[in-house]
Amino acid sequence: MGPGPSDVNPRILEALGRPTIGHLDPQFVAMMDELKELLRYAFQTRNELTMPVSAPGSAGMESCFVNLLEPGDSVIVCQNGVFGGRMKENVERCGATAIMVEDDWGRAIDANKVEDALKSNPQAKVLAFVHAETSTGAQSDAKTLCALASRYDCLSIVDCVTSLGGTPVLVDDWGADAVYSGTQKCLSCVPGLSPVTFSERAMEVIQSRDSTVQSWFLDLNLVLGYWGGGGKRAYHHTAPINSLYALHEALVILQEEGIENAWQRHRDHHRALRAGFEAMGLTLVVPEAERLPQLNAVSIPDGVDDAAVRGRLLADYHLEIGAGLGAMAGKIWRIGLMGHACSKRNVLLCLGAVDAVLGSMNAAIETGVAVTAALDSYRD
Amino acid sequence: MGPGPSDVNPRILEALGRPTIGHLDPQFVAMMDELKELLRYAFQTRNELTMPVSAPGSAGMESCFVNLLEPGDSVIVCQNGVFGGRMKENVERCGATAIMVEDDWGRAIDANKVEDALKSNPQAKVLAFVHAETSTGAQSDAKTLCALASRYDCLSIVDCVTSLGGTPVLVDDWGADAVYSGTQKCLSCVPGLSPVTFSERAMEVIQSRDSTVQSWFLDLNLVLGYWGGGGKRAYHHTAPINSLYALHEALVILQEEGIENAWQRHRDHHRALRAGFEAMGLTLVVPEAERLPQLNAVSIPDGVDDAAVRGRLLADYHLEIGAGLGAMAGKIWRIGLMGHACSKRNVLLCLGAVDAVLGSMNAAIETGVAVTAALDSYRD
Repeated sequence: MGPGPSDVNPRILEALGRPTIGHLDPQFVAMMDELKELLRYAFQTRNELTMPVSAPGSAGMESCFVNLLEPGDSVIVCQNGVFGGRMKENVERCGATAIMVEDDWGRAIDANKVEDALKSNPQAKVLAFVHAETSTGAQSDAKTLCALASRYDCLSIVDCVTSLGGTPVLVDDWGADAVYSGTQKCLSCVPGLSPVTFSERAMEVIQSRDSTVQSWFLDLNLVLGYWGGGGKRAYHHTAPINSLYALHEALVILQEEGIENAWQRHRDHHRALRAGFEAMGLTLVVPEAERLPQLNAVSIPDGVDDAAVRGRLLADYHLEIGAGLGAMAGKIWRIGLMGHACSKRNVLLCLGAVDAVLGSMNAAIETGVAVTAALDSYRD
Repeated sequence: MGPGPSDVNPRILEALGRPTIGHLDPQFVAMMDELKELLRYAFQTRNELTMPVSAPGSAGMESCFVNLLEPGDSVIVCQNGVFGGRMKENVERCGATAIMVEDDWGRAIDANKVEDALKSNPQAKVLAFVHAETSTGAQSDAKTLCALASRYDCLSIVDCVTSLGGTPVLVDDWGADAVYSGTQKCLSCVPGLSPVTFSERAMEVIQSRDSTVQSWFLDLNLVLGYWGGGGKRAYHHTAPINSLYALHEALVILQEEGIENAWQRHRDHHRALRAGFEAMGLTLVVPEAERLPQLNAVSIPDGVDDAAVRGRLLADYHLEIGAGLGAMAGKIWRIGLMGHACSKRNVLLCLGAVDAVLGSMNAAIETGVAVTAALDSYRD
């Protein structure tokens, strides 16, 4: 129950361990086509270019920046946590300039500040922001931000690593241009792949570049020879066959549940977990309207030893929760309720275990009430 | 029995499907330490910086180039097949200049030409070459080439994607500076990871760069915070946990067999396969002294329909063999005998199936003798 990797559904582990076939085998190629269609459902898009990058989410992020940017470009980057900072790193490593719009960590991105930045920087080519900040659990209003980007003639790059499958990611409705995610969060799949989707407008930019994409491995002009439409697949790199079996199964599971039902499930269990923490007297970092249901940042009570609590939870309850990252290190815990792990069983386990561990350390919390509060929430 | 991914050992598939734990979990971190030590055995090196890149072999290749090169550098690149060409692409995307040394496809690299290039290009920083050309099955003399690089004060980058675990890769004995490989060839593991190892000399170059590494994802200065020595692991990206379980198991299997025994097994089965093909009247493309035992390039007899034969082998025998790549397309088949798939059972299956399919097409081959010739080879 950390910020991901989340627990993997046993059906997905079973798919993962199936015998490896060739990456150009007709049966595998047919599965790739299904996978693209299933990903379009997850992203709620008709984008033709929708596929998994053969590497973790940070490579998915990099694939968006290296393909869309050329040296000398300007990018407005919103930062309200760790991953906005990583976007800045990516922009600069492309020889482009990052214009930073800073918000408090733990808060959503302020659209007014973004509009000011777009107004004062008419040369900007891209607006980049994180929809679901994995470092804080804050959710930003992607629809408003993408619309602002369009209005000021910018492309949008959106980080949906933690949101995909857990809270609405509506790529076409938002009008987002380049979106990347990860498999190890609300899809409950193994880590190592990064689903991405690009609008037609983004594709045109990629196909009419002046300079070569600086990464051979991530150059979409080449990757598309393998993942693109049409019958013939050209070898680019050897696809991670077994991880793709697993992602296919994860997406079939999402389709079986129905994505709206998955979103609702995340909201329901989040509400119960929150009720339990609040009954205990713990506070959530992010204001209610800006919270991600699947990632709950809880303030560590004064005087409590962060690492000792996490160590006890892991040793005594086999329960992993996440530490704070960057500016939040030592100040918060990050508790995931993602995908398959977003269940009543885990809500009760987490509340019971945190209650017991903090109680045994004489932390200033209300003990013995959290589980009841959560159960009450389920009854409402 | 293509050029990889090769058949995965069931023990490795079982390890792959184990429950996913956190990438900062102490048990996982302990496994990472074992993995690095096991990789040092596979690479026959004591290099501290020895680890798997969290992406396929082409990302391993890119990690060597982007970390060692800076804009304006010169690299001597040997090309005797497809992958030397990919090295050139990598060099140029780093803003560096590739000085090409060309050899015939299907032949080893000519050390004399390399020495001439080193002599005439004293500004060269790196010599890059492919030890085991997956596109042709040719093996080059890595020890001689690395020694030449050292003598002319160059770093060496060596592609060992297809050689690792199948034919001697002796990183320390060669004095190689940066070596990358893949998991899906002679380690019989799933595709998606790229083991790499860097000498101390290479590390010094990486740590004293003037410019930032252009890839955030592959920047070893950052990756080492997670994979490096010392107790504390800093989050960089989410490691592909399950694929790393699989690689760990693959390397344990290699250690159990003994790497010298694995090399000998590849030689023995190659000899039997070759005896069968030669009895049939088929010829191997690469001269005997330059052949990789694990990857056999066979000339397609005149008048035989390449795709039809491969299609029949796949449909009727569930046997995949590889097509030619690039300049070799339509001219050769690439038949792998890699790792777990390098077995008497597969040698006999392949010879029997090729005999039957070519015989049924009235190809100009000697039918009914290949399997006997292979069995005779095993008896010698």
